[in-house]
Amino acid sequence: MPVKTEAKQVYLFQDAYKEFEQDPASMRDYLGGKGAGLAQMSASGVNVPPGLTIATTACRHYSKTNAMPDGLWQEILLELEKVEESLNKKLGDAKKPLLLSVRSGAKFSMPGMMDTILNLGLNDTTCQSLAQITQNPRFAWDSYRRFIQMYSNVVLQIEKDVFEHTLAEKKKSLNLKLDTELSAENLKEIVTKYKSLVREKTANEFPQDVHVQLKGATEAVFRSWNNSRAVYYRNLNKIDHDLGTAVNIQSMVFGNYDNNSATGVCFTRNPSTGEKELYGEYLVNAQGEDVVAGIRTPKSIKEMEKEMPGVFGELVATITRLENHYKDMQDIEFTIEQGKLFLLQTRQGKRTARSALKVAVDLCKEGLITKEEAIARIDPNQLNQLLLPSFKSKDKDRAKKEGKLIATGLNASPGAAIGKIVFDPDEAESLSSKGEKIILVRIETCPDDIHGIVAAQGVVTCRGGMTSHAAVVARGMGKPCVVGCESLSINQDEQKFTVQGKTFTAGQVISIDGSTGEVFQDAIETEDPVILDDFTTLLAYADDIRKLAIRTNADTPHDARIARNFGAQGIGLCRTEHMFMAQDRLPFVKAMILASNTEDRLEALSKLLPMQQDDFEGIFEAMNNLPVTIRLLDPPLHEFLPKLDTLIGEVATMKALKQSGAALREKEILLARVKELHESNPMMGLRGCRLGLIYPEIMEMQVRAIFKAAISAQSKGHLPLPEIMIPLVSCASELELARRRLEACANEVLAQEGNVKINYKFGTMIELPRACITADEIAQHADFFSFGTNDLTQMTFGFSRDDAEGKFLQQYLEGLGGHKILDQNPFEVLDERGVGRLMQIACNYGRQVKPDIKLGICGEHGGEPSSIAFAQSLGLDYVSCSPYRVPIARLAAAQAIIKSKDSNKANQAIDK
Amino acid sequence: MPVKTEAKQVYLFQDAYKEFEQDPASMRDYLGGKGAGLAQMSASGVNVPPGLTIATTACRHYSKTNAMPDGLWQEILLELEKVEESLNKKLGDAKKPLLLSVRSGAKFSMPGMMDTILNLGLNDTTCQSLAQITQNPRFAWDSYRRFIQMYSNVVLQIEKDVFEHTLAEKKKSLNLKLDTELSAENLKEIVTKYKSLVREKTANEFPQDVHVQLKGATEAVFRSWNNSRAVYYRNLNKIDHDLGTAVNIQSMVFGNYDNNSATGVCFTRNPSTGEKELYGEYLVNAQGEDVVAGIRTPKSIKEMEKEMPGVFGELVATITRLENHYKDMQDIEFTIEQGKLFLLQTRQGKRTARSALKVAVDLCKEGLITKEEAIARIDPNQLNQLLLPSFKSKDKDRAKKEGKLIATGLNASPGAAIGKIVFDPDEAESLSSKGEKIILVRIETCPDDIHGIVAAQGVVTCRGGMTSHAAVVARGMGKPCVVGCESLSINQDEQKFTVQGKTFTAGQVISIDGSTGEVFQDAIETEDPVILDDFTTLLAYADDIRKLAIRTNADTPHDARIARNFGAQGIGLCRTEHMFMAQDRLPFVKAMILASNTEDRLEALSKLLPMQQDDFEGIFEAMNNLPVTIRLLDPPLHEFLPKLDTLIGEVATMKALKQSGAALREKEILLARVKELHESNPMMGLRGCRLGLIYPEIMEMQVRAIFKAAISAQSKGHLPLPEIMIPLVSCASELELARRRLEACANEVLAQEGNVKINYKFGTMIELPRACITADEIAQHADFFSFGTNDLTQMTFGFSRDDAEGKFLQQYLEGLGGHKILDQNPFEVLDERGVGRLMQIACNYGRQVKPDIKLGICGEHGGEPSSIAFAQSLGLDYVSCSPYRVPIARLAAAQAIIKSKDSNKANQAIDK
Repeated sequence: MPVKTEAKQVYLFQDAYKEFEQDPASMRDYLGGKGAGLAQMSASGVNVPPGLTIATTACRHYSKTNAMPDGLWQEILLELEKVEESLNKKLGDAKKPLLLSVRSGAKFSMPGMMDTILNLGLNDTTCQSLAQITQNPRFAWDSYRRFIQMYSNVVLQIEKDVFEHTLAEKKKSLNLKLDTELSAENLKEIVTKYKSLVREKTANEFPQDVHVQLKGATEAVFRSWNNSRAVYYRNLNKIDHDLGTAVNIQSMVFGNYDNNSATGVCFTRNPSTGEKELYGEYLVNAQGEDVVAGIRTPKSIKEMEKEMPGVFGELVATITRLENHYKDMQDIEFTIEQGKLFLLQTRQGKRTARSALKVAVDLCKEGLITKEEAIARIDPNQLNQLLLPSFKSKDKDRAKKEGKLIATGLNASPGAAIGKIVFDPDEAESLSSKGEKIILVRIETCPDDIHGIVAAQGVVTCRGGMTSHAAVVARGMGKPCVVGCESLSINQDEQKFTVQGKTFTAGQVISIDGSTGEVFQDAIETEDPVILDDFTTLLAYADDIRKLAIRTNADTPHDARIARNFGAQGIGLCRTEHMFMAQDRLPFVKAMILASNTEDRLEALSKLLPMQQDDFEGIFEAMNNLPVTIRLLDPPLHEFLPKLDTLIGEVATMKALKQSGAALREKEILLARVKELHESNPMMGLRGCRLGLIYPEIMEMQVRAIFKAAISAQSKGHLPLPEIMIPLVSCASELELARRRLEACANEVLAQEGNVKINYKFGTMIELPRACITADEIAQHADFFSFGTNDLTQMTFGFSRDDAEGKFLQQYLEGLGGHKILDQNPFEVLDERGVGRLMQIACNYGRQVKPDIKLGICGEHGGEPSSIAFAQSLGLDYVSCSPYRVPIARLAAAQAIIKSKDSNKANQAIDK
Repeated sequence: MPVKTEAKQVYLFQDAYKEFEQDPASMRDYLGGKGAGLAQMSASGVNVPPGLTIATTACRHYSKTNAMPDGLWQEILLELEKVEESLNKKLGDAKKPLLLSVRSGAKFSMPGMMDTILNLGLNDTTCQSLAQITQNPRFAWDSYRRFIQMYSNVVLQIEKDVFEHTLAEKKKSLNLKLDTELSAENLKEIVTKYKSLVREKTANEFPQDVHVQLKGATEAVFRSWNNSRAVYYRNLNKIDHDLGTAVNIQSMVFGNYDNNSATGVCFTRNPSTGEKELYGEYLVNAQGEDVVAGIRTPKSIKEMEKEMPGVFGELVATITRLENHYKDMQDIEFTIEQGKLFLLQTRQGKRTARSALKVAVDLCKEGLITKEEAIARIDPNQLNQLLLPSFKSKDKDRAKKEGKLIATGLNASPGAAIGKIVFDPDEAESLSSKGEKIILVRIETCPDDIHGIVAAQGVVTCRGGMTSHAAVVARGMGKPCVVGCESLSINQDEQKFTVQGKTFTAGQVISIDGSTGEVFQDAIETEDPVILDDFTTLLAYADDIRKLAIRTNADTPHDARIARNFGAQGIGLCRTEHMFMAQDRLPFVKAMILASNTEDRLEALSKLLPMQQDDFEGIFEAMNNLPVTIRLLDPPLHEFLPKLDTLIGEVATMKALKQSGAALREKEILLARVKELHESNPMMGLRGCRLGLIYPEIMEMQVRAIFKAAISAQSKGHLPLPEIMIPLVSCASELELARRRLEACANEVLAQEGNVKINYKFGTMIELPRACITADEIAQHADFFSFGTNDLTQMTFGFSRDDAEGKFLQQYLEGLGGHKILDQNPFEVLDERGVGRLMQIACNYGRQVKPDIKLGICGEHGGEPSSIAFAQSLGLDYVSCSPYRVPIARLAAAQAIIKSKDSNKANQAIDK
């Protein structure tokens, strides 16, 4: 924090901005966020209820010494006098009493963690005059009651319960339910009771001296900086405990003063649609609370033009000025006291994604903001909801109220789906072919289930994490999926599941929200996504600005086409194992794995070759003239076979029942092979290029299929641009040998077909720490690097994602005893400090050897905005993400450029 | 390679050294290893059979052009003339024929990969004269036969089989078995047959022109540089294909020339004991082959003093000069031809570990070498055999010949053990308590078996790798162990195993060699280790030189004492989980894990506390006044429970048999908990500090036990120096929170005991890539870093050791299609290029923040010499290794200093 030399500790709202003109950025350090905002508004000529801010320095002094700094109180009184003059009211005055709010306001928002006192300045005398002035005794006594209650709790430290109990007793004795039913007389009696409670608990009268009140409240706010809630919050959010809070002492204004008073809220544009129109509501002679309490129905802001035309004009002028000043749609709270307009707050208005888009594009068209600013306004993650069908929120809320939310699991693949419960993949396929919409419900899924997943609207599993089979496959297909829904107890045999004591049988309808992980009984109404013109306009702005190419992770021609429509500039990751998992191929894949010699394996592979070739040809056609990065087989072979656990159970059962014969023998042979392939830590076992080196014939078949497909696609007039990616390289010699063998295969195919020319590349996935640290050696054999940030994150942290997310990662993110271990899930947001530094090393080493090496990201981070910004800062060539995230990535890539320019500007400013 | 400008391509042995005086190091580049050695000996005045070396440049020229360089042949003839003169013989001369050998000799040894031709210069004429001169027609005709066979194969490229077949036919027709039974006449007939074979195959006569022979042989050696064997070998050993080979053309001398001729070998010192005495054997009028063939019994070299006193004197003088020159025991081959002594070869003599020690220490005492040189002479790994009981090699060889080697697995823990087969740990314990020596044979071991391992002499398992439970536990105990012995088929129920068709039942005696992984039937005689005085002397030299402290990995007072006796300077790794695995503790450990709430868990932990306290107290006493690094619980909890597979099988069986009641219910509850704890990749799951953060009470109990033990040990007059190590930290916040909580526990215990002062440290294991890359942040909360290089290697490579060693690592090391992927097993020899660079980053970052942070290695690499040298180069404070490797580490640490000085000297030389 810059050192401010003056001893000044108290700032009038209207004067504060001038004091910081030299260095407006430091204003938040001294005045806190709220104080800075009030100063800013006052400086813009907006009429805010006047007041003063005590700087954070005072709080720091108080925290150390437990006493107010010298001279502070005098300074407060001095500035307060100016407030009193400007309002023609006076604190404690019997005729024109000034009431104050006393609020904390730190540099960083700590909502609800510290204390606030309202209506300060009320005592037995001023309460009476307030009743008279407002002609509303009930309001005056209720305000007084609330003040005593708040002050006693915050300043005098009497537990809230004592007062709440008194209030409840009173209502009970009067047979009333709501506070609002209490009359002025009732409230007066309660005030009396409250005061005697204070006397009882503190052996003192409730302070009638308003200066005592103000001093007490100020010190209480100082103290609240160090209350346990606030300390916990700061630990959790890593906020410096030494910052201290500012204190804002502001005059209170009353919209219920008379019929020339009012209160209301309004938006400068429609927060739901983004239309440029005044939007909001107000109530004459009312307080904000009255709106909340729902006793009176507020009127549309548009009626105010007729009812209070003068003030309305002033309001429109003010908020237009504010919108022009802040260059964004504003959400404003205002109060009119005796015809005088006060703005209590202005802030960026919360809005739907649709509104956000329209407002940004409109503001740009109106010339208020640049294209860059329009782009910077949109939260890319918010766009997701525009790209997927979703449940109508009203309908969903209703379902929740009706208790129809039956379970919540992990939100593995976003979107909304409705269908009949089906437990069996075959049945799913058969019902789907009859036009039924179904939801596949499984304990967990395996490759055998893939046709069931294809057939379903969505998938629910009891077990597994964000990278479980179901999750990965469903995300790949853009199909809603909820996994790890552990409260579901499935009885496969009886075709039912129970949850929350309810039983659901096959055929019953459920709705699942893959964006939230929620599972509902019955159908909830959905709404379809619409690609708005504004969306298209904004993405066109983004495309002009961004430098990163956006590719997609797609394994099928269908996905490739979707992604291309969304603007994908190629495929960054085509996972060939998904092709192995198709129902018609699994038998050959299994035969290949169970083969006891190379010959049998080659036989099985020869069956798979034409199928893979078909896949690739479709993809090359869909991605005509765009690069397609194909990752050769990556997972361990046992992933294609039944689970070891299952087989052990089955064989044990068969043996116990003294079954024998061919069925048992076959099962035992399978079990033996599965045991042989079994690994303690399959993530770090025989997979990736290791598999390709030990069983070269598998990857060789894939390369043959790729080149045959490319040749065929080219002969049909397409331009295939295959980039063959060898996964899981830990040392250069692996890549060197694999590439040599595979390139030989490619050349063989090309020669066979009359020396056709195909424009191809060979490269590798950088997904192991050692690959990063030896990237100079690896780059000698690679035309490109694609960072596999999923595995790289796993290995760098030593976190198995499947295990970590269920066992400790959640607690790390939520905090253990108030201490966050991680701020963000490194599997969602790229860990720049650790994983990112390894990537930086890899980029540097790679470029040393091959300055023009192509660099990209194909992990899931490729679709996450802040990770995209990091990719930009590394100067990568592209990121790759799932088809539905392509628009988000386009936007985020542009934002990354804008942010880096901004930070360059800031750095230049500092240099000057 | 330095560029030599002269066009000289052929060097006489005796003149070569002079030519390279300016730069002796480049001699190997031009003359190859063998040529350089011959030049060196000749220069030292040793009488070697004269000859010449054709430089590698000629071979490089030949490889490119397929023709000899201009002028080469003339140069050869010119130098050959000098050879002929010095010997008074002439190539092809009918009276005094000179015979030559033509041998390859590259810069780097490629044993057996290239071609050699002996007896060149023989033809129909010279063969006759050789017969006459030697009075040994059989020798002459046999030499001629061999020459034709060799030349025809190497130069004329006729397959060997053709000649072998002829030879075999001849023996068959004469009803002979051995080549040596063939008479001169027989051999003469064979020569005739050979020559006609050559005529048949090449349509030419076998060349009688000796110059044609020499030219042909020289070119053949050139060509052999690129034969497929040699190329394969160079690929495998990463030798540059462009180097080329030199060709050595040397005169042949004959120990069977007459009775004034002889042949023999001798060592300058006893290679078995190291005593300073001439050691060797010789035969008069004989060739080297005669010794090998075993027809005549050689005499001891000592008899030569009487038999040939003149030459003997010359031999002693020569070899003494050679020993003084090379400053090491020499192994010499010599031939005496007509009273003239020739040395054919001198090399460092191979020796036993015992001899190596004695020779090094004696040479040092004799003033021939310095202490540094004495230390540098010893291969630390060779010392291992002096520290462990081993099988007598003769007895072991005999057992192999008798077919008693029944299986070979992984050499998990070295040493020899003999005992009766036992399959059950309880029985092992009971038999052992009756004084029986037993070997525990298990499919795999689990924590439940620990008492069985303690009771056994050694352990054999069918499954698991070098880090399997059995391997780790046995190594920790210094107990011989063979794991992954997959050919053993164990039938637990019937208490037997079968292997190689033989069946072994409980009670039969087997012998296992944990150093080689071999399993033998019956007992093999062992010999015990003796700590020799020379050993002690050498280690004292080493201690004066080394800078690294040597600590040990020990989990019990017993191991700690052994290590201290071997010179350990503290404990670098005390694994507390081994304490949890003791038979008397497992019930409480299980109760702790199965506890469904914190209260029950605390109850179980309170039972474990006094036991852990006892362990620590014993260790503090054994390591009085030395630091003890204690690693808090590291493995995942499921390691302490039965295996999931086993439970699934058992429950399935019980259910199929319709069993029910308490037993099934209990088993099902256990299964449920095991399933809950189950992880896809336990290596990267809920373990280490993660476990300690999620279940803080476990580590808190351990810290309480440590401090209670330290206080108690201190009260008894010992000085405990605990260093508490928090494992598996991936980010600083984990360590920060864990340390804060645990230090609070420690302070609580210290306060309870009257504010006793204990000198303690808190630190962490650096075993994840992210810990290395964020070591600056982590160092803020650590007093020390201990590199856990086992896990760090696993994570950096993405290799699960258990899976990798069985599935692909072996192939990576052996080479795939002639291409080595890895030169060394990174789990044995630290991978400097990858893992090492991460360690370097961690050291730099750590020291930036805390310049005096204590740094060490506690992975298994801590006992491996080249990894110790790397630790020295990083400037670490200590390495830690298993007790039996402490002496090896002491030596290796001294060698590291010596090597770094040498390389500094070399660098300084270059600078000048």
